[in-house]
Amino acid sequence: MERKGILFVLSGPSGAGKGTVLHEVLQKVQGLAVSVSATTRAPRPGEINGIHYHFRTKDEFQQMVDNNEFLEHVVKFHNRYGTPKAQVEKLLNEGKDVVLEIETKGASKVRRANPDAVYIFITPSNYEELNKRLNVRGTESPEVCALRLKIAKTEYKSIRYYDYIAINDNLDECVNTVSAIILAERNKRRRNAELADNLMTLKS
Amino acid sequence: MERKGILFVLSGPSGAGKGTVLHEVLQKVQGLAVSVSATTRAPRPGEINGIHYHFRTKDEFQQMVDNNEFLEHVVKFHNRYGTPKAQVEKLLNEGKDVVLEIETKGASKVRRANPDAVYIFITPSNYEELNKRLNVRGTESPEVCALRLKIAKTEYKSIRYYDYIAINDNLDECVNTVSAIILAERNKRRRNAELADNLMTLKS
Repeated sequence: MERKGILFVLSGPSGAGKGTVLHEVLQKVQGLAVSVSATTRAPRPGEINGIHYHFRTKDEFQQMVDNNEFLEHVVKFHNRYGTPKAQVEKLLNEGKDVVLEIETKGASKVRRANPDAVYIFITPSNYEELNKRLNVRGTESPEVCALRLKIAKTEYKSIRYYDYIAINDNLDECVNTVSAIILAERNKRRRNAELADNLMTLKS
Repeated sequence: MERKGILFVLSGPSGAGKGTVLHEVLQKVQGLAVSVSATTRAPRPGEINGIHYHFRTKDEFQQMVDNNEFLEHVVKFHNRYGTPKAQVEKLLNEGKDVVLEIETKGASKVRRANPDAVYIFITPSNYEELNKRLNVRGTESPEVCALRLKIAKTEYKSIRYYDYIAINDNLDECVNTVSAIILAERNKRRRNAELADNLMTLKS
């Protein structure tokens, strides 16, 4: 029996630093695959199509929705974001552990279809810090920042559905936490049924 | 509300290297307390009373049993081993995370009273390796080695009750695994109810 990959979902409010944490975790932890989201938003400076996002037109994106090609898809700030389903399932079936970095709304859609995935909520330890970071980024208007904060309030209500809370007040510590969660989950007995069976019957 | 400590139970067959792994984990992970077992067996060279074990006479040990002072106690190779209850409870109530390194039989007694503890099974990845280590240690007679192997077969059957399997083919890797499990468990959402509540209501 081939071991199936584990699906890790990194989520949390805008400004929590999910993307940066994921970037560092990928340097640190072996054997992780990422799912690249599709989006209708314009690339930011430095973003590369197929690496950071699959950039799609509104029509192309809608076509993918109609074809049921998304594991989850959401609208945010008038742009659409989605996780292509086939890509994730292929990786998991190959035994690769996959990390999704998605919004909390998308995470709740994934959760309904994948209760066995691991849900990690990334957040600063308090609201003031989040507020500060949203205003510091400097690439968004004050209106967008205010809207983000309002959305964050809703996003925090979903914490109760997550398996882990990874505090991101210090990047290194948060990267260590998320890396530890991944390593620990890989060593869960119930995720290693074949190994446990072999040991229980003392086959080598 | 004061956070209560987490109880970690390291177990597995003789020869799996539980003691060595624990020793290294204590160097690596901050904020762990160990429970020192009581035993009637004679100290091995280098073992210090109160550090490695509380060495007790048979009568003293029996007195502790009669007073219900043990969280668990077992007989092994004609010697008795036990975990003093008061010491563990005091540490947990102070918010310290406690690690017990105990035999699988003892672990199943602890499990009944502490279902919320974290159970980690330490083992080489196969039986041949364990067999080799039992014969290599050199401090035991061949009869004791053979008996240990027989006991190991029984011990392996309890794997199904453990939360994690930490493979100890390579010491550093096993220490990393156990350290990651401890860090991950500390960040479980359900173990941080107050933090989750504060974030959900956006208190700072």
